Amino acid sequence: MHDQNWAIGVDLGGTKMEIGHVDMLGNVHQRVRYTHANRHPDYIMAQIEETAKQLIADAVSPALGLGIGVPGQIERATGRVSFAPNLQWRDVPIKKKLEQALNIPVHVTNDVRAAAMGEWVYGAGAGCEDLVCLFIGTGIGGGVVSGGHMLLGHSNSAGELGHTTIDWMGKTACSCGNSGCLEAFASGWAIAKRAREAVQQDPAAGAQLLKSAEGQLASITAEKVVKAFFEGDRLAETIINAALEALVAGCVSLVNTFNPRMLLLGGGVSKGLSPILVSHIEAGIKKKGLSQSAAAVEVVLSKLSGNAGLVGSAALALL
Amino acid sequence: MHDQNWAIGVDLGGTKMEIGHVDMLGNVHQRVRYTHANRHPDYIMAQIEETAKQLIADAVSPALGLGIGVPGQIERATGRVSFAPNLQWRDVPIKKKLEQALNIPVHVTNDVRAAAMGEWVYGAGAGCEDLVCLFIGTGIGGGVVSGGHMLLGHSNSAGELGHTTIDWMGKTACSCGNSGCLEAFASGWAIAKRAREAVQQDPAAGAQLLKSAEGQLASITAEKVVKAFFEGDRLAETIINAALEALVAGCVSLVNTFNPRMLLLGGGVSKGLSPILVSHIEAGIKKKGLSQSAAAVEVVLSKLSGNAGLVGSAALALL
Repeated sequence: MHDQNWAIGVDLGGTKMEIGHVDMLGNVHQRVRYTHANRHPDYIMAQIEETAKQLIADAVSPALGLGIGVPGQIERATGRVSFAPNLQWRDVPIKKKLEQALNIPVHVTNDVRAAAMGEWVYGAGAGCEDLVCLFIGTGIGGGVVSGGHMLLGHSNSAGELGHTTIDWMGKTACSCGNSGCLEAFASGWAIAKRAREAVQQDPAAGAQLLKSAEGQLASITAEKVVKAFFEGDRLAETIINAALEALVAGCVSLVNTFNPRMLLLGGGVSKGLSPILVSHIEAGIKKKGLSQSAAAVEVVLSKLSGNAGLVGSAALALL
Repeated sequence: MHDQNWAIGVDLGGTKMEIGHVDMLGNVHQRVRYTHANRHPDYIMAQIEETAKQLIADAVSPALGLGIGVPGQIERATGRVSFAPNLQWRDVPIKKKLEQALNIPVHVTNDVRAAAMGEWVYGAGAGCEDLVCLFIGTGIGGGVVSGGHMLLGHSNSAGELGHTTIDWMGKTACSCGNSGCLEAFASGWAIAKRAREAVQQDPAAGAQLLKSAEGQLASITAEKVVKAFFEGDRLAETIINAALEALVAGCVSLVNTFNPRMLLLGGGVSKGLSPILVSHIEAGIKKKGLSQSAAAVEVVLSKLSGNAGLVGSAALALL
């Protein structure tokens, strides 16, 4: 009943996990979602093992393998998680353990690269040889395909596009310890932080935002700021317009650096801003980018959205 | 008397040109330098043709081909120069013309990419699979090798590393029409411009710099500012220290984006600053870069210096 060639995809996040049966075309036939009751590697690996065995038992043909995207640094040669801060994992030999448990090939990659892989193979960037994926969610990450190759880097860490410096003289702190990063101006956490600070400084101007968060400063999220922006709230407009300009700067750098055919924008903030995002970024690139590269690039939105990581992980085992 | 396998390298600049006999090991056995008396494509192509024929006649074995680096945009499929601003060339079918004239394969690339190729094949980056070359001269350009592939981009324009935005809110104008680019803060022209402006604003502080330029504001060059910096001139220190910090920001972005094994710094400004440049950039990367990528990278200076473009162009025909 299912496609003959399929693999197990695992999208492992800091708070939840999704495991699915994914076919060669990127269709998800069956999926299970978990919220971590326990983040211990043994617990999570046991959950993956159990679910994978169930998916294998349910399928009419054997799984080609399992691919997993992990929010952390992966040692490429061994598939070992060297550090995953949101899971508090260090040195977890996940590839070795899961291969022993399941007896199928296991491929481990970074979660953001898995999502880029998904968009490249099955999503809005399908077949594109020169693709830059910029995921703007709580943080900002990316994945780059150039000349048909996904860039990995010397220690498998290429693509940290949120941590390009766009304000070298400024003091705006980033999550990474540096200041002036793109992420410090345009990510979900930065938008929320900027909004909370602004509401605190000027409660009158922040009345609508604060109300949307039921009076709780800490409940102001990027999502609420984006919503207020589209409702015409002045303060939200100031904050989102600044984030958009920061994104233009970041995107111009990416276009000049990589000369991609496609610049794909994904992640929750991109989704929220989707009614205006592409046209805004495109106009900024045309105005500020080098003409040859600006003319070559098309800006597109993620097509797979929340599915990108799941099918991209599976793609590692399918291709 | 010469190596059996050799090619002709041509390093074509905006004001001068160098043509050489380059062997498989990147040794230059014979070279001719020209200063352009005339920049018309026909004139320059005739000069290349004549010199190439002479080099071929002088050699004991036939040339494998000719490689040429041109300061402009090259159409990859055809080897046509679409635009070379410093030569005022538009749509020059240089590959086709030279192949007809010389009857050997001709390879055309951008001059900066040719230099990156030279460093990658014969220079300080030899054999490095993940190499970022940043050339800091009058302008700033680059070339990137990732996973053993030189990045080209969709329209052959990848690697414009000088035009990454490092000051998204600022107004510092760049040569490209945008503002806030790395080149606008750390290139030779930017250093000279900053120095001239500072001398004009504060002639007392600028006395030493102005004297070094024989009292002519317009004669203050980046080279003179670098020299004054090493002599302890306060104004030059301020200017060069700012350029160095801008370079740190740019290099941190490159390291986080590409996760290279080697970051190679070349160009005239790098050469001038060589006594302190590597240690300064390395310290900045360790402090501000993502730890995984910062730990992976080694910062090195160009080894080929002015020869990189010549041997890199020839490499296109040799490899």
